[in-house]
Amino acid sequence: MSEGRLFDTMAFIGIGLIGSSLARVARRDGLAGRIVACARTDETLRKALDLGLADRVTKDPAEAADGADIVLICAPIGATGAIARTIAPVLKPGQIVTDIGSVKRAVIDAVTPHMPEGVHFVPGHPLAGTENTGPESGFDTLFEGRWCVLTPPDGADPEAVETVAELWRRAGSAVDILDPEHHDWVLAITSHLPTLIAFNIVGTVADLESSTKQEVIKYSATGFRDFTRIAAQDPIMWRDVYLNNREAVLEMLQRFSEDLSRLQRAIRWGEGEALEDLFRRSRDIRRSVIDAGQA
Amino acid sequence: MSEGRLFDTMAFIGIGLIGSSLARVARRDGLAGRIVACARTDETLRKALDLGLADRVTKDPAEAADGADIVLICAPIGATGAIARTIAPVLKPGQIVTDIGSVKRAVIDAVTPHMPEGVHFVPGHPLAGTENTGPESGFDTLFEGRWCVLTPPDGADPEAVETVAELWRRAGSAVDILDPEHHDWVLAITSHLPTLIAFNIVGTVADLESSTKQEVIKYSATGFRDFTRIAAQDPIMWRDVYLNNREAVLEMLQRFSEDLSRLQRAIRWGEGEALEDLFRRSRDIRRSVIDAGQA
Repeated sequence: MSEGRLFDTMAFIGIGLIGSSLARVARRDGLAGRIVACARTDETLRKALDLGLADRVTKDPAEAADGADIVLICAPIGATGAIARTIAPVLKPGQIVTDIGSVKRAVIDAVTPHMPEGVHFVPGHPLAGTENTGPESGFDTLFEGRWCVLTPPDGADPEAVETVAELWRRAGSAVDILDPEHHDWVLAITSHLPTLIAFNIVGTVADLESSTKQEVIKYSATGFRDFTRIAAQDPIMWRDVYLNNREAVLEMLQRFSEDLSRLQRAIRWGEGEALEDLFRRSRDIRRSVIDAGQA
Repeated sequence: MSEGRLFDTMAFIGIGLIGSSLARVARRDGLAGRIVACARTDETLRKALDLGLADRVTKDPAEAADGADIVLICAPIGATGAIARTIAPVLKPGQIVTDIGSVKRAVIDAVTPHMPEGVHFVPGHPLAGTENTGPESGFDTLFEGRWCVLTPPDGADPEAVETVAELWRRAGSAVDILDPEHHDWVLAITSHLPTLIAFNIVGTVADLESSTKQEVIKYSATGFRDFTRIAAQDPIMWRDVYLNNREAVLEMLQRFSEDLSRLQRAIRWGEGEALEDLFRRSRDIRRSVIDAGQA
């Protein structure tokens, strides 16, 4: 392989925001001799070709996976199991399969049964994204300075894990290895619950009578706007997150609701000191986020 | 008065983020011949002098207000009534008193009884802010491109209202006139509820066991981080908002909680279609926010 090259052939099953951003990195840095992209619609495939993201496109995941050194499943979580089943017949020992899903235990359970002996499945999750979708929304700096979490099963091939880690490091990410259950729990609170709450408050506004709604939109810069950006993310992707990380999300949601009831009660009864105490604690967490270089 | 000058003397009662930002605008554009600043601590007064924000400083609101053309109460809502009572004895017909509180009905009720005949009280609310506090946190572009809402009572002096409006236009804001109750209702949903929810989720995290908390902070860029920024705002200011806009906030909170229960139920029972439908609606609201130029 030439300098910088990691793979002869990369196959992207799904070429949306994440897939197309990684394909752009691969193009920019010559990480692959050849890129194959698979999507469900002709329109997406045409865009991928027009954007120069792939050398070859197909609607058939098995055709894309056939002979690729690495198969990247960059699709909503709910589609991952079916994709694994479809590509299984063409997979050969030594091939690497990875994914980018925001939930790891459910993906592992859906994919692992289909993996032939000797095929290396390395589950992954780049902690990066925007509210945009489709191959035109990607950009090659999306992963820079972000974390990518890998959750390889016990006994995973260390070389395959290292190859996937190296791919993400080339994209500019720092790589962490986590247990899948622990990943799902942490993401439930850092990502899945905040997004659910954003969807919810935007939904509450959608139900307002239209004159008030117009003014809420007009004055949205006072806070609401930030929630609309979070809640503009792909509905299918997020539906699948909640269906597949159900227990962790419900547990965090329960804690959130209990805490909110306490705040509601403090407001109703005019308990200023309790409100102030609760609000003060937030500043400590913010300081920790800043100290961790995540602000 | 010289070109550009609006006032001989401006008195700021409170010189934090909002007050000091407006004082910076006044300095930059020569809006006032003289600026007097009042704060509760020597440290804040020293900073205001060091930063060149005021010509004279005092801890006594009445001393600051005495003889000023405009008195700007830039303090937490809960302090506004007491400030009005303190300055009342020195106020003279023709003086303008205004404020910057996020709740208007409660402020009007607290201030109006103290205003002597002929003194013009023009309640205001610049829809701008950051999570920072204190005179050093202000900047002269804070209000540019933002709304400032005025809620003058029936029969308010049109000239005084126009003077306050002109002040905010000089700061770069567009000025709207609203009924105070309507303002409080709209702000409950655009600002007060989103901030409460941000405080709440950050509080939920604060209660997590410390090992998980560390990882939540580490991976906070996945969504949680945005909430920590919102929830890093001044605890006293927000305590006063909730205590003074109680009914509107409790009403919106009730709607939010009902909607969240519906989402929770859909997750628990795996109702993918319902989740997707609810999430899809959010995109329409986001588009409206973008169309309104507020994104």
